[in-house]
Amino acid sequence: MALSKKVFRSGPYADLIAQGVQVGNTLYLSGQVGMDEAGNIPTSMAEQTVLAYANIRTVLAEFGAGFDNIVDETFLVTSVEETHDQLEAIFGARAEAYGGTPEVTQTLIGVAGLLLPELKLEIKCIAHL
Amino acid sequence: MALSKKVFRSGPYADLIAQGVQVGNTLYLSGQVGMDEAGNIPTSMAEQTVLAYANIRTVLAEFGAGFDNIVDETFLVTSVEETHDQLEAIFGARAEAYGGTPEVTQTLIGVAGLLLPELKLEIKCIAHL
Amino acid sequence: MALSKKVFRSGPYADLIAQGVQVGNTLYLSGQVGMDEAGNIPTSMAEQTVLAYANIRTVLAEFGAGFDNIVDETFLVTSVEETHDQLEAIFGARAEAYGGTPEVTQTLIGVAGLLLPELKLEIKCIAHL
Repeated sequence: MALSKKVFRSGPYADLIAQGVQVGNTLYLSGQVGMDEAGNIPTSMAEQTVLAYANIRTVLAEFGAGFDNIVDETFLVTSVEETHDQLEAIFGARAEAYGGTPEVTQTLIGVAGLLLPELKLEIKCIAHL
Repeated sequence: MALSKKVFRSGPYADLIAQGVQVGNTLYLSGQVGMDEAGNIPTSMAEQTVLAYANIRTVLAEFGAGFDNIVDETFLVTSVEETHDQLEAIFGARAEAYGGTPEVTQTLIGVAGLLLPELKLEIKCIAHL
Repeated sequence: MALSKKVFRSGPYADLIAQGVQVGNTLYLSGQVGMDEAGNIPTSMAEQTVLAYANIRTVLAEFGAGFDNIVDETFLVTSVEETHDQLEAIFGARAEAYGGTPEVTQTLIGVAGLLLPELKLEIKCIAHL
């Protein structure tokens, strides 16, 4: 019996990967980055954070979910130092996306690279519906 | 009451880690790499991809599962540039393993290192049974 | 209807992130590091491993869980070479924490950085209750 998945595809890699897959009550999201629909990537990590959460919101909405449904975040950054320097702006953008203090676990990882050289962070979430 | 887990162990680190653990309907797989049973590691990232998916297939089979059961992939690569250069071959190998377009989320991460210096990628999957 | 989460917060970032979030039978833990309650970070990776597992134990206990409940580990290290050099001590500390051979999947990732420059490893766990 085939597994029943709900799948959402979008963006330039829609033929290769899904942006969200739901099985049972669990929703996996592909890592979301700070790029707008036109493909623009702002320079600052804080601005990229705003866009990454906007993209997360879009994926969640496809499953009738919102930020309250997120349970776990992996925060992938190309510079931990820059993350510390912009901590207030980054976590301010996060609090605004969540509409308050997130009830979410988070793991911060300094990575050697992300999909495109302009990207400074990527946020991978797991949600529960 | 002890948690009921189904566990599959294999390979040189079988004493330390499991290659697959199922609880309820969820199956976690350890990251799989491009090494064959004799310990050979091909040079190219695309060839390592073929082997990594072969190893994933072996783990899935131990739980009566197949590629349709995978819901989330974390794609760990030592060079994002090389990944782009070989994108067709890598994602071709992936499509062949899945037997079509995967209904799977994916997060690509450029890492500073993997278990052995010859390894260029590692694929960590979560499946649902 | 709001999602029912059980949440545990602790430590210097308690306002920003949760250390553990349970939904249904699944418990997500934030990556735990080798720092004691006074903020001290030992130099060796093996000693940091001992402390990281002590911190994992603390989070698990808040949910009435123990090491038997862990199903998946992501082992983030700043040096794969140092991990190999101290493999016995690191996995000895792990076996001691688990009280035997863990029935747990594990993915080792060499990262470019962790939250603080003194940190050499971080362990991100998923548990099932």
